[in-house]
Amino acid sequence: MTTSELVAQIQKKKSFLCIGLDVDLNKIPQHLLKEEEDPIFAFNKAIIDATHHLCVAYKPNTAFYEAYGIKGWESLEKTIKYLNEKYPEIFTIADAKRGDIGNTSTMYAKAFFEDLAFDSVTVAPYMGKDSVEPFLAFKDKHTIMLALTSNAGAFDFQTKTVDGKELYKHVLETSKTWTNAANLMYVVGATKAEYFADIRKIIPHSFLLVPGVGAQGGNLQDVCKYGMTENVGLLINSSRGIIYASSNEDFAEAAAKSAEILQQDMKAILE
Amino acid sequence: MTTSELVAQIQKKKSFLCIGLDVDLNKIPQHLLKEEEDPIFAFNKAIIDATHHLCVAYKPNTAFYEAYGIKGWESLEKTIKYLNEKYPEIFTIADAKRGDIGNTSTMYAKAFFEDLAFDSVTVAPYMGKDSVEPFLAFKDKHTIMLALTSNAGAFDFQTKTVDGKELYKHVLETSKTWTNAANLMYVVGATKAEYFADIRKIIPHSFLLVPGVGAQGGNLQDVCKYGMTENVGLLINSSRGIIYASSNEDFAEAAAKSAEILQQDMKAILE
Repeated sequence: MTTSELVAQIQKKKSFLCIGLDVDLNKIPQHLLKEEEDPIFAFNKAIIDATHHLCVAYKPNTAFYEAYGIKGWESLEKTIKYLNEKYPEIFTIADAKRGDIGNTSTMYAKAFFEDLAFDSVTVAPYMGKDSVEPFLAFKDKHTIMLALTSNAGAFDFQTKTVDGKELYKHVLETSKTWTNAANLMYVVGATKAEYFADIRKIIPHSFLLVPGVGAQGGNLQDVCKYGMTENVGLLINSSRGIIYASSNEDFAEAAAKSAEILQQDMKAILE
Repeated sequence: MTTSELVAQIQKKKSFLCIGLDVDLNKIPQHLLKEEEDPIFAFNKAIIDATHHLCVAYKPNTAFYEAYGIKGWESLEKTIKYLNEKYPEIFTIADAKRGDIGNTSTMYAKAFFEDLAFDSVTVAPYMGKDSVEPFLAFKDKHTIMLALTSNAGAFDFQTKTVDGKELYKHVLETSKTWTNAANLMYVVGATKAEYFADIRKIIPHSFLLVPGVGAQGGNLQDVCKYGMTENVGLLINSSRGIIYASSNEDFAEAAAKSAEILQQDMKAILE
Protein backbone atom coordinates (compact mmCIF):
# COMPACT_ATOMS: atom_id res chain seq x y z
CA MET A 1 0.00 0.00 0.00
CA THR A 2 1.29 3.49 -0.81
CA THR A 3 1.35 6.26 1.78
CA SER A 4 -1.13 8.29 -0.26
CA GLU A 5 -3.59 5.38 -0.20
CA LEU A 6 -3.26 5.33 3.59
CA VAL A 7 -3.84 9.09 3.76
CA ALA A 8 -6.91 8.80 1.51
CA GLN A 9 -8.36 6.13 3.80
CA ILE A 10 -7.78 8.36 6.85
CA GLN A 11 -9.62 11.25 5.19
CA LYS A 12 -12.50 9.03 4.09
CA LYS A 13 -13.04 7.31 7.45
CA LYS A 14 -12.17 10.38 9.55
CA SER A 15 -9.98 8.11 11.60
CA PHE A 16 -6.28 7.43 12.16
CA LEU A 17 -6.94 4.60 14.59
CA CYS A 18 -4.90 1.39 14.59
CA ILE A 19 -6.29 -1.54 16.55
CA GLY A 20 -3.76 -3.87 18.16
CA LEU A 21 -4.70 -7.53 17.86
CA ASP A 22 -2.78 -8.80 20.91
CA VAL A 23 -4.85 -11.88 21.53
CA ASP A 24 -4.37 -13.69 24.82
CA LEU A 25 -6.41 -16.89 25.31
CA ASN A 26 -6.75 -16.03 29.01
CA LYS A 27 -8.43 -12.73 28.21
CA ILE A 28 -10.81 -13.45 25.32
CA PRO A 29 -14.44 -14.43 26.01
CA GLN A 30 -14.28 -17.95 27.33
CA HIS A 31 -17.22 -19.23 25.26
CA LEU A 32 -14.96 -18.95 22.19
CA LEU A 33 -12.60 -21.56 23.65
CA LYS A 34 -15.44 -24.07 23.82
CA GLU A 35 -17.20 -23.28 20.56
CA GLU A 36 -14.43 -22.49 18.11
CA GLU A 37 -11.76 -24.68 16.53
CA ASP A 38 -9.46 -21.63 16.22
CA PRO A 39 -10.59 -19.24 18.98
CA ILE A 40 -7.85 -16.68 18.24
CA PHE A 41 -8.92 -16.29 14.62
CA ALA A 42 -12.62 -16.35 15.57
CA PHE A 43 -11.96 -13.55 18.04
CA ASN A 44 -9.97 -11.49 15.50
CA LYS A 45 -12.57 -12.01 12.77
CA ALA A 46 -15.39 -10.81 15.02
CA ILE A 47 -13.35 -7.77 16.17
CA ILE A 48 -12.36 -6.89 12.60
CA ASP A 49 -15.91 -7.23 11.21
CA ALA A 50 -17.22 -4.98 14.01
CA THR A 51 -14.53 -2.27 13.83
CA HIS A 52 -13.11 -2.08 10.27
CA HIS A 53 -15.11 1.07 9.38
CA LEU A 54 -13.74 2.89 12.47
CA CYS A 55 -10.02 2.25 12.00
CA VAL A 56 -7.46 2.39 9.20
CA ALA A 57 -4.97 -0.21 10.47
CA TYR A 58 -4.70 -3.47 12.42
CA LYS A 59 -1.54 -4.47 14.24
CA PRO A 60 -1.16 -8.06 15.44
CA ASN A 61 1.81 -8.36 17.80
CA THR A 62 3.61 -11.54 16.72
CA ALA A 63 4.56 -12.48 20.31
CA PHE A 64 0.96 -13.36 21.08
CA TYR A 65 0.83 -15.77 18.15
CA GLU A 66 4.29 -17.31 18.57
CA ALA A 67 3.41 -18.09 22.18
CA TYR A 68 0.95 -20.70 20.85
CA GLY A 69 3.45 -22.33 18.47
CA ILE A 70 2.25 -23.60 15.09
CA LYS A 71 -1.41 -23.14 16.04
CA GLY A 72 -0.69 -19.49 16.81
CA TRP A 73 1.20 -19.02 13.56
CA GLU A 74 -1.82 -20.50 11.71
CA SER A 75 -4.13 -18.02 13.47
CA LEU A 76 -1.85 -15.17 12.37
CA GLU A 77 -1.84 -16.39 8.76
CA LYS A 78 -5.64 -16.70 8.73
CA THR A 79 -6.01 -13.22 10.24
CA ILE A 80 -3.79 -11.44 7.69
CA LYS A 81 -5.34 -13.43 4.83
CA TYR A 82 -8.83 -12.46 5.99
CA LEU A 83 -7.83 -8.80 6.22
CA ASN A 84 -6.19 -8.76 2.79
CA GLU A 85 -9.14 -10.50 1.11
CA LYS A 86 -12.09 -8.85 2.83
CA TYR A 87 -10.72 -5.40 3.73
CA PRO A 88 -7.84 -4.71 1.32
CA GLU A 89 -8.05 -0.95 2.05
CA ILE A 90 -6.80 -1.59 5.61
CA PHE A 91 -3.12 -0.92 6.42
CA THR A 92 -1.63 -3.98 8.14
CA ILE A 93 1.26 -3.94 10.61
CA ALA A 94 3.21 -6.98 11.79
CA ASP A 95 4.41 -5.80 15.20
CA ALA A 96 7.45 -8.04 15.28
CA LYS A 97 10.30 -5.68 16.31
CA ARG A 98 12.77 -7.69 14.22
CA GLY A 99 16.35 -6.82 13.31
CA ASP A 100 19.38 -8.90 12.37
CA ILE A 101 22.41 -8.75 10.06
CA GLY A 102 21.78 -8.08 6.36
CA ASN A 103 20.93 -11.43 4.78
CA THR A 104 18.96 -12.49 7.86
CA SER A 105 16.91 -9.30 7.83
CA THR A 106 16.07 -10.08 4.21
CA MET A 107 14.64 -13.42 5.38
CA TYR A 108 12.47 -11.61 7.94
CA ALA A 109 11.37 -9.07 5.33
CA LYS A 110 10.32 -11.88 2.99
CA ALA A 111 8.46 -13.60 5.82
CA PHE A 112 6.34 -10.56 6.63
CA PHE A 113 6.10 -8.70 3.30
CA GLU A 114 5.85 -11.64 0.89
CA ASP A 115 4.81 -14.81 2.68
CA LEU A 116 2.30 -13.13 5.04
CA ALA A 117 1.72 -10.06 2.79
CA PHE A 118 1.67 -7.43 5.54
CA ASP A 119 1.95 -3.78 4.44
CA SER A 120 4.49 -3.04 7.17
CA VAL A 121 6.62 -4.48 9.94
CA THR A 122 8.17 -2.98 13.08
CA VAL A 123 11.97 -3.21 13.50
CA ALA A 124 14.53 -2.43 16.21
CA PRO A 125 17.40 -0.01 15.41
CA TYR A 126 20.23 -1.31 17.63
CA MET A 127 22.11 -3.17 14.84
CA GLY A 128 22.07 -0.11 12.55
CA LYS A 129 21.83 0.56 8.84
CA ASP A 130 22.54 -2.87 7.35
CA SER A 131 19.95 -4.48 9.65
CA VAL A 132 17.15 -2.14 8.47
CA GLU A 133 17.93 -1.38 4.81
CA PRO A 134 16.99 -4.92 3.66
CA PHE A 135 13.41 -4.16 4.81
CA LEU A 136 13.42 -0.77 3.06
CA ALA A 137 14.16 -2.37 -0.32
CA PHE A 138 10.56 -3.61 -0.71
CA LYS A 139 8.39 -1.34 -2.89
CA ASP A 140 5.17 -0.01 -1.33
CA LYS A 141 6.03 -1.73 1.96
CA HIS A 142 6.75 0.23 5.12
CA THR A 143 9.30 -0.33 7.86
CA ILE A 144 8.30 1.08 11.23
CA MET A 145 11.41 1.58 13.35
CA LEU A 146 11.43 1.92 17.14
CA ALA A 147 12.47 5.46 18.08
CA LEU A 148 11.00 6.40 21.46
CA THR A 149 8.91 3.68 23.05
CA SER A 150 6.18 4.08 25.68
CA ASN A 151 7.58 1.76 28.37
CA ALA A 152 9.62 2.67 31.45
CA GLY A 153 12.74 1.05 29.93
CA ALA A 154 12.74 3.73 27.20
CA PHE A 155 14.71 5.86 29.66
CA ASP A 156 17.47 3.24 30.04
CA PHE A 157 19.07 3.92 26.66
CA GLN A 158 16.77 5.80 24.23
CA THR A 159 16.88 9.11 26.09
CA LYS A 160 20.59 9.00 26.99
CA THR A 161 22.71 11.75 25.46
CA VAL A 162 24.82 10.78 22.44
CA ASP A 163 26.98 13.50 20.88
CA GLY A 164 24.89 16.23 22.46
CA LYS A 165 21.47 14.81 21.71
CA GLU A 166 19.27 11.95 22.91
CA LEU A 167 19.91 8.54 21.34
CA TYR A 168 16.41 8.35 19.82
CA LYS A 169 17.02 11.65 17.99
CA HIS A 170 20.33 10.29 16.76
CA VAL A 171 18.46 7.20 15.52
CA LEU A 172 15.91 9.38 13.70
CA GLU A 173 18.56 11.58 12.06
CA THR A 174 20.83 8.72 11.04
CA SER A 175 17.97 6.73 9.53
CA LYS A 176 17.10 9.61 7.19
CA THR A 177 20.37 8.96 5.32
CA TRP A 178 19.60 5.30 4.59
CA THR A 179 18.68 4.01 1.12
CA ASN A 180 14.90 4.10 0.56
CA ALA A 181 14.41 6.07 3.80
CA ALA A 182 11.07 7.22 2.36
CA ASN A 183 9.75 3.75 3.32
CA LEU A 184 10.42 4.44 7.01
CA MET A 185 7.82 5.16 9.66
CA TYR A 186 8.63 5.36 13.38
CA VAL A 187 7.27 4.17 16.73
CA VAL A 188 6.91 7.09 19.16
CA GLY A 189 5.10 6.54 22.45
CA ALA A 190 2.24 8.86 23.39
CA THR A 191 3.27 9.02 27.03
CA LYS A 192 5.75 11.77 26.13
CA ALA A 193 3.63 14.16 24.05
CA GLU A 194 5.96 17.09 24.69
CA TYR A 195 8.69 15.22 22.76
CA PHE A 196 6.67 15.25 19.52
CA ALA A 197 7.59 18.89 18.74
CA ASP A 198 11.31 18.06 18.74
CA ILE A 199 10.72 14.88 16.77
CA ARG A 200 8.82 16.77 14.07
CA LYS A 201 11.82 19.07 13.60
CA ILE A 202 13.83 15.99 12.56
CA ILE A 203 11.16 14.06 10.61
CA PRO A 204 8.51 16.60 9.60
CA HIS A 205 6.56 14.33 7.24
CA SER A 206 7.02 10.69 8.34
CA PHE A 207 4.14 8.65 9.69
CA LEU A 208 4.40 7.82 13.39
CA LEU A 209 2.86 4.74 14.99
CA VAL A 210 1.84 5.90 18.45
CA PRO A 211 1.15 3.41 21.25
CA GLY A 212 0.28 4.48 24.77
CA VAL A 213 -2.88 6.56 24.31
CA GLY A 214 -5.40 5.66 27.00
CA ALA A 215 -4.24 2.69 29.08
CA GLN A 216 -0.64 3.91 29.32
CA GLY A 217 -1.65 7.51 30.07
CA GLY A 218 -1.07 9.32 26.77
CA ASN A 219 -3.41 12.11 25.71
CA LEU A 220 -4.77 12.15 22.13
CA GLN A 221 -5.17 15.93 21.91
CA ASP A 222 -1.59 16.58 23.05
CA VAL A 223 -0.14 14.05 20.62
CA CYS A 224 -2.07 15.61 17.73
CA LYS A 225 -1.16 19.16 18.77
CA TYR A 226 2.57 18.43 18.55
CA GLY A 227 2.72 15.45 16.19
CA MET A 228 0.18 15.96 13.39
CA THR A 229 1.35 16.83 9.86
CA GLU A 230 -0.37 18.14 6.73
CA ASN A 231 -1.08 14.48 5.86
CA VAL A 232 -2.07 13.61 9.44
CA GLY A 233 1.12 11.53 9.81
CA LEU A 234 -0.16 9.65 12.86
CA LEU A 235 -1.48 6.17 13.50
CA ILE A 236 -2.76 5.99 17.07
CA ASN A 237 -2.75 2.45 18.40
CA SER A 238 -5.09 1.04 20.99
CA SER A 239 -5.07 -2.65 21.86
CA ARG A 240 -6.49 -3.80 25.20
CA GLY A 241 -8.81 -0.79 25.63
CA ILE A 242 -10.70 -1.88 22.50
CA ILE A 243 -10.40 -5.64 22.06
CA TYR A 244 -11.06 -6.44 25.74
CA ALA A 245 -13.82 -3.86 26.27
CA SER A 246 -16.08 -6.76 27.23
CA SER A 247 -15.36 -10.39 28.09
CA ASN A 248 -18.90 -11.51 27.35
CA GLU A 249 -20.74 -12.54 24.19
CA ASP A 250 -21.12 -8.85 23.28
CA PHE A 251 -17.32 -8.41 23.02
CA ALA A 252 -17.34 -7.36 19.35
CA GLU A 253 -20.04 -4.71 19.81
CA ALA A 254 -18.28 -3.45 22.95
CA ALA A 255 -15.02 -3.21 20.98
CA ALA A 256 -16.81 -1.20 18.29
CA LYS A 257 -18.21 1.17 20.92
CA SER A 258 -14.75 1.73 22.42
CA ALA A 259 -13.24 2.22 18.96
CA GLU A 260 -15.99 4.67 18.03
CA ILE A 261 -15.23 6.89 21.05
CA LEU A 262 -11.64 7.25 19.83
CA GLN A 263 -12.73 7.64 16.20
CA GLN A 264 -15.16 10.42 17.13
CA ASP A 265 -12.38 12.25 18.98
CA MET A 266 -10.22 11.87 15.87
CA LYS A 267 -13.02 13.10 13.60
CA ALA A 268 -13.35 16.23 15.74
CA ILE A 269 -9.60 16.85 15.51
CA LEU A 270 -9.52 16.29 11.72
CA GLU A 271 -12.42 18.70 11.19
CA MET B 1 20.45 -26.04 31.64
CA THR B 2 22.68 -24.49 34.30
CA THR B 3 25.85 -22.61 33.44
CA SER B 4 27.95 -25.23 35.27
CA GLU B 5 26.44 -27.98 33.10
CA LEU B 6 27.47 -25.97 30.04
CA VAL B 7 31.01 -25.53 31.42
CA ALA B 8 31.26 -29.26 32.19
CA GLN B 9 30.28 -30.06 28.61
CA ILE B 10 32.94 -27.67 27.28
CA GLN B 11 35.63 -29.33 29.39
CA LYS B 12 34.51 -32.82 28.37
CA LYS B 13 34.32 -32.14 24.63
CA LYS B 14 37.29 -29.75 24.57
CA SER B 15 35.12 -27.44 22.51
CA PHE B 16 33.22 -24.19 22.92
CA LEU B 17 31.84 -24.27 19.41
CA CYS B 18 28.26 -23.26 18.58
CA ILE B 19 26.92 -24.25 15.17
CA GLY B 20 24.42 -21.86 13.59
CA LEU B 21 21.55 -23.65 11.86
CA ASP B 22 20.65 -20.91 9.37
CA VAL B 23 19.03 -23.12 6.79
CA ASP B 24 18.35 -21.61 3.37
CA LEU B 25 16.57 -23.88 0.86
CA ASN B 26 18.63 -22.28 -1.93
CA LYS B 27 21.88 -23.35 -0.29
CA ILE B 28 21.29 -26.87 1.01
CA PRO B 29 22.11 -29.90 -1.17
CA GLN B 30 19.44 -30.00 -3.83
CA HIS B 31 18.85 -33.76 -3.62
CA LEU B 32 17.22 -33.14 -0.22
CA LEU B 33 14.50 -31.04 -1.86
CA LYS B 34 13.52 -33.99 -4.07
CA GLU B 35 13.86 -36.82 -1.58
CA GLU B 36 12.66 -35.37 1.71
CA GLU B 37 9.22 -34.29 2.89
CA ASP B 38 10.83 -31.76 5.26
CA PRO B 39 14.22 -30.93 3.70
CA ILE B 40 15.08 -28.32 6.37
CA PHE B 41 14.68 -30.80 9.22
CA ALA B 42 16.41 -33.56 7.22
CA PHE B 43 19.35 -31.22 6.66
CA ASN B 44 19.51 -30.19 10.34
CA LYS B 45 19.23 -33.79 11.55
CA ALA B 46 22.12 -34.91 9.34
CA ILE B 47 24.28 -31.94 10.40
CA ILE B 48 23.49 -32.51 14.09
CA ASP B 49 24.18 -36.27 13.96
CA ALA B 50 27.52 -35.61 12.25
CA THR B 51 28.73 -32.75 14.49
CA HIS B 52 27.18 -33.10 17.99
CA HIS B 53 30.40 -34.49 19.51
CA LEU B 54 32.41 -31.50 18.22
CA CYS B 55 30.23 -28.65 19.49
CA VAL B 56 28.42 -27.70 22.69
CA ALA B 57 25.60 -25.58 21.25
CA TYR B 58 23.30 -25.20 18.24
CA LYS B 59 21.76 -21.90 17.26
CA PRO B 60 18.91 -21.84 14.75
CA ASN B 61 18.22 -18.28 13.61
CA THR B 62 14.43 -17.97 13.63
CA ALA B 63 14.38 -15.73 10.52
CA PHE B 64 15.32 -18.67 8.31
CA TYR B 65 12.35 -20.68 9.61
CA GLU B 66 9.78 -17.87 9.66
CA ALA B 67 10.63 -17.17 6.03
CA TYR B 68 8.92 -20.47 5.16
CA GLY B 69 5.78 -19.80 7.18
CA ILE B 70 4.07 -22.65 9.04
CA LYS B 71 6.25 -25.26 7.29
CA GLY B 72 9.34 -23.44 8.55
CA TRP B 73 7.95 -23.21 12.07
CA GLU B 74 7.30 -26.97 11.97
CA SER B 75 10.91 -27.58 10.90
CA LEU B 76 12.11 -25.47 13.84
CA GLU B 77 9.89 -27.41 16.28
CA LYS B 78 11.14 -30.74 14.97
CA THR B 79 14.75 -29.58 15.19
CA ILE B 80 14.60 -28.43 18.81
CA LYS B 81 12.59 -31.52 19.80
CA TYR B 82 15.18 -33.77 18.16
CA LEU B 83 18.00 -31.96 19.96
CA ASN B 84 16.28 -32.11 23.35
CA GLU B 85 15.44 -35.80 23.00
CA LYS B 86 18.57 -37.19 21.39
CA TYR B 87 21.28 -34.80 22.65
CA PRO B 88 19.96 -33.28 25.89
CA GLU B 89 23.49 -32.24 26.93
CA ILE B 90 23.59 -29.70 24.07
CA PHE B 91 22.94 -26.01 24.88
CA THR B 92 20.28 -24.64 22.53
CA ILE B 93 19.95 -21.02 21.43
CA ALA B 94 16.93 -19.50 19.67
CA ASP B 95 18.56 -16.65 17.76
CA ALA B 96 15.45 -14.51 17.64
CA LYS B 97 16.65 -11.05 18.77
CA ARG B 98 13.29 -10.35 20.37
CA GLY B 99 12.31 -7.50 22.67
CA ASP B 100 9.02 -5.79 23.49
CA ILE B 101 7.20 -4.22 26.42
CA GLY B 102 6.86 -6.27 29.61
CA ASN B 103 3.80 -8.48 29.13
CA THR B 104 4.65 -9.02 25.47
CA SER B 105 8.22 -10.08 26.28
CA THR B 106 6.71 -12.62 28.67
CA MET B 107 4.79 -14.09 25.71
CA TYR B 108 8.03 -14.37 23.71
CA ALA B 109 9.82 -15.93 26.70
CA LYS B 110 7.08 -18.54 27.02
CA ALA B 111 7.24 -19.26 23.29
CA PHE B 112 10.97 -19.99 23.33
CA PHE B 113 11.59 -21.29 26.87
CA GLU B 114 8.40 -23.29 27.45
CA ASP B 115 6.65 -24.11 24.18
CA LEU B 116 9.85 -24.79 22.19
CA ALA B 117 12.00 -25.61 25.28
CA PHE B 118 15.15 -23.79 24.17
CA ASP B 119 17.83 -23.21 26.82
CA SER B 120 18.34 -19.60 25.72
CA VAL B 121 17.12 -16.84 23.44
CA THR B 122 18.79 -13.73 22.01
CA VAL B 123 17.20 -10.34 22.76
CA ALA B 124 17.73 -6.70 21.69
CA PRO B 125 18.42 -4.06 24.37
CA TYR B 126 16.88 -0.90 22.84
CA MET B 127 13.65 -0.99 24.90
CA GLY B 128 15.54 -1.37 28.19
CA LYS B 129 15.04 -3.11 31.50
CA ASP B 130 11.34 -3.97 31.41
CA SER B 131 11.71 -5.52 27.94
CA VAL B 132 14.47 -7.93 29.08
CA GLU B 133 13.64 -8.76 32.72
CA PRO B 134 10.61 -10.91 31.75
CA PHE B 135 13.06 -13.27 30.02
CA LEU B 136 15.40 -13.29 33.02
CA ALA B 137 12.66 -14.57 35.33
CA PHE B 138 12.90 -18.12 33.95
CA LYS B 139 15.02 -20.45 36.10
CA ASP B 140 17.96 -22.20 34.38
CA LYS B 141 17.18 -20.36 31.13
CA HIS B 142 19.60 -17.85 29.63
CA THR B 143 18.96 -14.54 27.91
CA ILE B 144 21.65 -13.54 25.44
CA MET B 145 21.51 -9.78 24.90
CA LEU B 146 23.01 -7.95 21.92
CA ALA B 147 25.93 -5.82 23.08
CA LEU B 148 28.41 -5.30 20.23
CA THR B 149 27.42 -7.02 17.00
CA SER B 150 29.68 -8.08 14.13
CA ASN B 151 28.00 -6.18 11.29
CA ALA B 152 28.94 -2.80 9.80
CA GLY B 153 25.82 -1.19 11.31
CA ALA B 154 27.25 -1.82 14.80
CA PHE B 155 29.07 1.49 14.36
CA ASP B 156 25.85 3.44 13.73
CA PHE B 157 24.71 3.42 17.35
CA GLN B 158 26.47 0.77 19.50
CA THR B 159 29.87 2.48 19.51
CA LYS B 160 28.59 6.06 19.89
CA THR B 161 29.61 7.80 23.09
CA VAL B 162 26.99 8.03 25.85
CA ASP B 163 27.97 9.80 29.06
CA GLY B 164 31.67 9.34 28.32
CA LYS B 165 31.55 5.72 27.22
CA GLU B 166 30.33 3.73 24.21
CA LEU B 167 26.64 2.78 24.15
CA TYR B 168 27.40 -0.97 24.21
CA LYS B 169 29.41 -0.51 27.44
CA HIS B 170 26.53 1.46 28.90
CA VAL B 171 24.22 -1.43 27.91
CA LEU B 172 26.53 -3.95 29.62
CA GLU B 173 26.84 -1.91 32.83
CA THR B 174 23.15 -1.09 33.08
CA SER B 175 22.10 -4.70 32.52
CA LYS B 176 24.19 -5.85 35.49
CA THR B 177 21.71 -4.04 37.80
CA TRP B 178 18.65 -5.88 36.48
CA THR B 179 16.80 -8.54 38.48
CA ASN B 180 18.21 -12.03 37.79
CA ALA B 181 21.13 -10.53 35.84
CA ALA B 182 22.98 -13.78 36.48
CA ASN B 183 20.85 -15.27 33.70
CA LEU B 184 22.34 -12.86 31.15
CA MET B 185 24.85 -13.70 28.45
CA TYR B 186 25.88 -11.27 25.71
CA VAL B 187 26.47 -11.20 21.96
CA VAL B 188 29.90 -9.73 21.16
CA GLY B 189 31.20 -9.89 17.59
CA ALA B 190 34.63 -11.40 16.96
CA THR B 191 35.52 -8.82 14.34
CA LYS B 192 36.63 -6.46 17.12
CA ALA B 193 38.85 -8.67 19.28
CA GLU B 194 40.62 -5.68 20.83
CA TYR B 195 37.31 -4.67 22.45
CA PHE B 196 37.13 -7.88 24.52
CA ALA B 197 39.64 -6.62 27.11
CA ASP B 198 37.45 -3.60 27.92
CA ILE B 199 34.32 -5.76 27.93
CA ARG B 200 35.85 -8.19 30.40
CA LYS B 201 36.46 -5.28 32.81
CA ILE B 202 32.68 -4.74 32.91
CA ILE B 203 31.48 -8.36 32.79
CA PRO B 204 34.41 -10.52 33.95
CA HIS B 205 32.46 -13.78 34.25
CA SER B 206 29.51 -13.74 31.83
CA PHE B 207 29.32 -16.06 28.86
CA LEU B 208 29.68 -14.34 25.49
CA LEU B 209 28.17 -15.64 22.26
CA VAL B 210 30.68 -14.67 19.59
CA PRO B 211 29.72 -14.57 15.90
CA GLY B 212 32.10 -13.45 13.19
CA VAL B 213 35.00 -15.91 13.53
CA GLY B 214 36.09 -17.06 10.08
CA ALA B 215 33.73 -15.82 7.36
CA GLN B 216 33.43 -12.34 8.87
CA GLY B 217 37.16 -12.01 9.57
CA GLY B 218 37.43 -12.59 13.32
CA ASN B 219 40.42 -14.44 14.73
CA LEU B 220 39.86 -17.24 17.28
CA GLN B 221 43.19 -16.82 19.07
CA ASP B 222 42.70 -13.07 19.55
CA VAL B 223 39.18 -13.51 20.87
CA CYS B 224 40.36 -16.13 23.38
CA LYS B 225 43.37 -14.04 24.41
CA TYR B 226 41.18 -11.12 25.44
CA GLY B 227 37.82 -12.75 26.11
CA MET B 228 38.36 -16.09 27.85
CA THR B 229 37.54 -16.50 31.56
CA GLU B 230 38.35 -19.09 34.22
CA ASN B 231 35.20 -20.95 33.03
CA VAL B 232 35.99 -20.37 29.33
CA GLY B 233 33.05 -17.94 29.10
CA LEU B 234 32.90 -18.07 25.31
CA LEU B 235 30.65 -19.73 22.77
CA ILE B 236 32.15 -19.23 19.31
CA ASN B 237 29.52 -19.44 16.60
CA SER B 238 30.07 -20.58 13.05
CA SER B 239 27.18 -21.03 10.65
CA ARG B 240 27.83 -21.00 6.90
CA GLY B 241 31.48 -22.11 7.17
CA ILE B 242 30.30 -25.39 8.68
CA ILE B 243 26.81 -26.20 7.42
CA TYR B 244 27.54 -25.28 3.79
CA ALA B 245 31.03 -26.82 3.66
CA SER B 246 29.75 -28.99 0.81
CA SER B 247 26.62 -28.83 -1.34
CA ASN B 248 26.83 -32.47 -2.36
CA GLU B 249 25.68 -35.73 -0.79
CA ASP B 250 28.71 -35.63 1.52
CA PHE B 251 27.49 -32.37 3.15
CA ALA B 252 27.24 -33.81 6.68
CA GLU B 253 30.74 -35.31 6.64
CA ALA B 254 32.11 -32.07 5.17
CA ALA B 255 30.39 -30.12 7.95
CA ALA B 256 31.97 -32.42 10.54
CA LYS B 257 35.40 -31.88 8.99
CA SER B 258 34.99 -28.10 9.10
CA ALA B 259 33.70 -28.26 12.68
CA GLU B 260 36.62 -30.48 13.70
CA ILE B 261 39.16 -27.93 12.44
CA LEU B 262 37.66 -25.32 14.75
CA GLN B 263 37.27 -27.82 17.60
CA GLN B 264 40.93 -28.84 17.33
CA ASP B 265 41.98 -25.18 17.52
CA MET B 266 39.79 -24.83 20.62
CA LYS B 267 41.24 -28.00 22.17
CA ALA B 268 44.76 -26.57 21.73
CA ILE B 269 43.71 -23.33 23.39
CA LEU B 270 42.00 -25.12 26.31
CA GLU B 271 45.05 -27.30 26.93
